[in-house]
Amino acid sequence: MSSAMEKIAFIGIGNMGWPMAACLVRQGYDVKVFDAVPGRADAFVQEVGGAAAHTPADISAGVDVIITMLPTSLHVEQALTATTENISAGSLVIEMSSGLPSVTRTLAEALALRGVAMIDAPVSGGVERARSGTLAILAGGDLAALERARPVLEAMGSSIHRIGEVGAGQAMKALNNLVSAGGFLIGIEALIIGKSFGLDPELMVDALNSSTGMNNSTKNKFKQYVLSGKFDSGFGLDLMVKDLAIALDVGAAGGTATPFSALCLELARSTAGLLGPGRDHTEFARLPERLSGVQLHAEPNET
Amino acid sequence: MSSAMEKIAFIGIGNMGWPMAACLVRQGYDVKVFDAVPGRADAFVQEVGGAAAHTPADISAGVDVIITMLPTSLHVEQALTATTENISAGSLVIEMSSGLPSVTRTLAEALALRGVAMIDAPVSGGVERARSGTLAILAGGDLAALERARPVLEAMGSSIHRIGEVGAGQAMKALNNLVSAGGFLIGIEALIIGKSFGLDPELMVDALNSSTGMNNSTKNKFKQYVLSGKFDSGFGLDLMVKDLAIALDVGAAGGTATPFSALCLELARSTAGLLGPGRDHTEFARLPERLSGVQLHAEPNET
Amino acid sequence: MSSAMEKIAFIGIGNMGWPMAACLVRQGYDVKVFDAVPGRADAFVQEVGGAAAHTPADISAGVDVIITMLPTSLHVEQALTATTENISAGSLVIEMSSGLPSVTRTLAEALALRGVAMIDAPVSGGVERARSGTLAILAGGDLAALERARPVLEAMGSSIHRIGEVGAGQAMKALNNLVSAGGFLIGIEALIIGKSFGLDPELMVDALNSSTGMNNSTKNKFKQYVLSGKFDSGFGLDLMVKDLAIALDVGAAGGTATPFSALCLELARSTAGLLGPGRDHTEFARLPERLSGVQLHAEPNET
Amino acid sequence: MSSAMEKIAFIGIGNMGWPMAACLVRQGYDVKVFDAVPGRADAFVQEVGGAAAHTPADISAGVDVIITMLPTSLHVEQALTATTENISAGSLVIEMSSGLPSVTRTLAEALALRGVAMIDAPVSGGVERARSGTLAILAGGDLAALERARPVLEAMGSSIHRIGEVGAGQAMKALNNLVSAGGFLIGIEALIIGKSFGLDPELMVDALNSSTGMNNSTKNKFKQYVLSGKFDSGFGLDLMVKDLAIALDVGAAGGTATPFSALCLELARSTAGLLGPGRDHTEFARLPERLSGVQLHAEPNET
Ligand SMILES: NC(=O)C1=CN([C@@H]2O[C@H](COP(=O)(O)OP(=O)(O)OC[C@H]3O[C@@H](n4cnc5c(N)ncnc54)[C@H](OP(=O)(O)O)[C@@H]3O)[C@@H](O)[C@H]2O)C=CC1
Ligand SMILES: NC(=O)C1=CN([C@@H]2O[C@H](COP(=O)(O)OP(=O)(O)OC[C@H]3O[C@@H](n4cnc5c(N)ncnc54)[C@H](OP(=O)(O)O)[C@@H]3O)[C@@H](O)[C@H]2O)C=CC1
Ligand SMILES: NC(=O)C1=CN([C@@H]2O[C@H](COP(=O)(O)OP(=O)(O)OC[C@H]3O[C@@H](n4cnc5c(N)ncnc54)[C@H](OP(=O)(O)O)[C@@H]3O)[C@@H](O)[C@H]2O)C=CC1
Repeated sequence: MSSAMEKIAFIGIGNMGWPMAACLVRQGYDVKVFDAVPGRADAFVQEVGGAAAHTPADISAGVDVIITMLPTSLHVEQALTATTENISAGSLVIEMSSGLPSVTRTLAEALALRGVAMIDAPVSGGVERARSGTLAILAGGDLAALERARPVLEAMGSSIHRIGEVGAGQAMKALNNLVSAGGFLIGIEALIIGKSFGLDPELMVDALNSSTGMNNSTKNKFKQYVLSGKFDSGFGLDLMVKDLAIALDVGAAGGTATPFSALCLELARSTAGLLGPGRDHTEFARLPERLSGVQLHAEPNET
Repeated sequence: MSSAMEKIAFIGIGNMGWPMAACLVRQGYDVKVFDAVPGRADAFVQEVGGAAAHTPADISAGVDVIITMLPTSLHVEQALTATTENISAGSLVIEMSSGLPSVTRTLAEALALRGVAMIDAPVSGGVERARSGTLAILAGGDLAALERARPVLEAMGSSIHRIGEVGAGQAMKALNNLVSAGGFLIGIEALIIGKSFGLDPELMVDALNSSTGMNNSTKNKFKQYVLSGKFDSGFGLDLMVKDLAIALDVGAAGGTATPFSALCLELARSTAGLLGPGRDHTEFARLPERLSGVQLHAEPNET
Repeated sequence: MSSAMEKIAFIGIGNMGWPMAACLVRQGYDVKVFDAVPGRADAFVQEVGGAAAHTPADISAGVDVIITMLPTSLHVEQALTATTENISAGSLVIEMSSGLPSVTRTLAEALALRGVAMIDAPVSGGVERARSGTLAILAGGDLAALERARPVLEAMGSSIHRIGEVGAGQAMKALNNLVSAGGFLIGIEALIIGKSFGLDPELMVDALNSSTGMNNSTKNKFKQYVLSGKFDSGFGLDLMVKDLAIALDVGAAGGTATPFSALCLELARSTAGLLGPGRDHTEFARLPERLSGVQLHAEPNET
Repeated sequence: MSSAMEKIAFIGIGNMGWPMAACLVRQGYDVKVFDAVPGRADAFVQEVGGAAAHTPADISAGVDVIITMLPTSLHVEQALTATTENISAGSLVIEMSSGLPSVTRTLAEALALRGVAMIDAPVSGGVERARSGTLAILAGGDLAALERARPVLEAMGSSIHRIGEVGAGQAMKALNNLVSAGGFLIGIEALIIGKSFGLDPELMVDALNSSTGMNNSTKNKFKQYVLSGKFDSGFGLDLMVKDLAIALDVGAAGGTATPFSALCLELARSTAGLLGPGRDHTEFARLPERLSGVQLHAEPNET
């Protein structure tokens, strides 16, 4: 892609990071990977290619670009701290997790003192679009750094939006997920009302999809993950709750009052409390199901 | 379309009814129109064609199909009562208003006793799609009656969904509008949070539209009617509140508990209370704007 | 109390009706009782005194005052219809259930045509205060009828408030229960937040009770029925949900927008959906407990 | 009170601090006061007695006990930092503001390193009870420090609850205010529903007060500050919003999901956004008034 392709370190090869790093390998990048789960980096090398780092510290030795794709900003802070000595001046950190803008800004300031640039570039689209390299990328940071990152980002995504300064991408990402979660929840409640009235959920989803009730969840999640009873989108409920909390936090910092969003967060948090850990975000549907005693999917509802 | 085209009475030629009746005229139907606003039927005949009824009673004399497109079920009840003597056995009533399923069912039962069939076929898509004859039609009623209505409906819409028995179309319509209103509100709140954080509303809408936050409002309403400050979609706030109330009513009848939807209705009702009558439904955005003191559109906010 | 004490029919001797009718017997009234549960009227006569009616129809034969204390207005309508022929002109109906103002008004109009007066006089205070004859009575109806009823009401209650015309007592009753339920729920959520922070629920209740957080639930319900794990106040969750629905219905009729109250109703309805029938209204506490995974009472939480 | 009465520094003599410090003077304590508002300390000395500090630093010179009564924990942090050098080992800080438990704990740890004890002892009851020395005091801290503080606290309050370790008093205070605000809001919404139905607000408040809808707001705020149109309780809306945010923050830290409380906070924040700064907390009533277009108080509603 670029005449002299940058050498890349990729930290966090989980549900999203794995297929994203795989896109980079496919594009010909020299990629070194690391993950906290033992053996995962080696598995990646075997299945996909690239090299593995074996300690948290040596991941950034000898690379130009360091990508982080971790659950939360806390993990990013730890990962970067562990390897800080090995990050050479002139390199670029691309933080792609859905993280907290305030933490990212603090990290960016600290790295700047060492001559290291940092942008944030969280993604939207889920595991499917990570695999096909067609993620939507919401970036924040100064223009020069973003231009430098562009070829790397284009290997993973099909649209790149610069939203503002560093942290802005993550703020936008959280807001995007808030809108997504709200559309999911109101859609599920509508299906539940309709089913209690005697309507067929599949027909209702079709009707929404050709009407103004259409949203990303009615199109890509309801039949696929909820009505099917599969609940296997690959995006965790805990991660969704984290994103909503970031969105509301961004709002509270700005002093805004957003009752509808606040209720959405609380209901998501309630679902996580009710169901326990390890759930898919599409299991958000189980809250209105339980509260109203109406089940949308065929299978018996496990406790 | 059909070898012997049915003669049609069209009651209610307002924002939606006018362009819908015009589609029928364009398709070659023999259309008689009536509206409570004096002079409106004559204006239609002059601009578009067809004939005008001059009393509420004579609108259904000599026709095969009677279409109602009125603000609420109450209006439909009055309109049909006024002309009941003139509805001949064997004709078909197509109720296309966004009405109350329970009232529609009662009307259908009464008409059945007189040998008159009735289906409900409310529409989604707004004035634009009414003009182009590409509405989404959500129908309820028995199959034979719906098949008879199909050519007429196809003159006005590009997709026809049969959701269930009579009333089911209106239940679905209300649920569709609930999902639409919820997606609108959560999207506006997200823009407000983002703007208070320093992000640009236009960029945010673009980002939502290529990400999972996409919904019908982010695509077709935010830039067009809200950020532009135009608020002229042509669908009234009072009508939206009515639809949400129907959706929740369908739910309460089924005994369902839907907190997120209930809050959406109350906030919509609050907006109507706060702004007074005669507002566009996109002015729903003014509630979060006022509550948080952040304005999304450029113009000074009028009281 | 009055020189010539009125003869009284008492329909519905359930949790509340039984102790209320017992107060009348204790005050020397001649009381005839009836209940849909077979044998209950006879049990009352044996334990407390008075006479039993054995068919729904004969309960009002030969009496001056007919008291109804039934679950809902629907039951009241049925009970009065069944005995309508036996209600003599000049008698007085005192409807003491927590019913729907609109239904009560319709009943009152029908009775007025037969020369029978009707007031509504629902009560607040629960089973304890019913036993001790110290209920708060919220009455609606014209002054003369209310004055006639006063001695009878004073046998059961310690405060009598005339709120307005017939139906006003029931509207006020529903609103009272809304405020009560809201105070209960916000108090329980506060205890849950506090417990998750490490505070002791008993100490928190004491602190609320000497501070501005005090309300009827913090005083009379939290330690008694929730922290104790007893959940046996004697006022059913289904009845509470009914009252909240009436309160919101009164509001919707008036076109008011009350988001906080609407959420309270939906959460109450959710609790009833989640727990199933036959629950005490203090089990409303189980919803926030489950949603947040924090339990306030000692015993293991049954499903 | 104690044989050798402690010398007291009082920082923050605003709406609450002034009458509280005055209680101490009346009880014979040697009190030195300071406030950020120029001239206020001197005014206190002239009207009430005691001595004035003239720089933020010298307030704690030569005293045994330092009391803080400031708007937020941020102010407390600044005030204590400014005078830190003058706080002698062995003295006791009593933080009486409604502050953030986490900040207070951090301050307490820092002071402990200097041999200074700290407890938190926020108050409930408002300006009236501050004047009469009958506040409810919600304390957190170790037992010895609290026992030492007791005589001083008893000069200002009539009940002292130890809730737990340092910070626990403030957590409890925030939760108390959450319950208080929730009771206020649901009560106001009920009055609005009732008024829209035709009921008289004064009669409704009386009815609530003798029924289960009774709470501290129905008793002490509705007639006094809302129906009267006075809105002059002396407790600011901004301070109430701060307390609710602390309560929810305590909850979020514990991972709890409390939808009803979250909506209460958002609606309070909305009211503050809608009305602008300098409002009394009882003006929370103006939100449901505006949202529903029903006004409870007689005077014309100013913008
Ligand atoms: N899944 C999805 O559909 C989407 C996810 N996202 C966001 O992308 C980010 C990643 O999500 P996802 O891939 O699903 O999460 P996963 O939990 O699947 O992957 C994260 C991986 O990083 C590892 N890890 C944690 N800490 C470290 C560390 N210090 N050094 C190296 N590795 C570490 C984790 O190990 P361990 O399990 O041991 O913690 C895990 O294997 C999140 O911020 C998420 O919100 C964005 C869009 C869509
Ligand atoms: N319990 C409480 O603390 C309070 C209750 N209330 C209100 O008082 C009313 C009564 O409540 P409560 O006593 O708890 O209810 P219960 O269900 O305990 O009692 C109602 C009784 O009426 C019987 N009944 C139903 N229909 C008829 C009929 N047509 N003729 C004769 N009897 C009939 C019921 O029988 P069956 O069970 O077979 O239906 C039942 O035995 C309700 O409106 C409630 O909301 C008010 C204040 C407090
Ligand atoms: N008012 C009430 O009814 C109740 C209040 N509370 C709580 O008590 C606390 C005080 O409230 P209240 O008295 O109403 O508030 P006020 O704003 O009336 O008083 C606070 C005073 O402290 C001054 N101040 C601010 N910073 C400093 C500083 N660094 N050094 C010295 N003085 C300073 C303020 O000056 P300036 O105005 O210049 O900032 C102001 O005069 C708050 O935490 C509140 O939540 C608790 C119960 C009831």
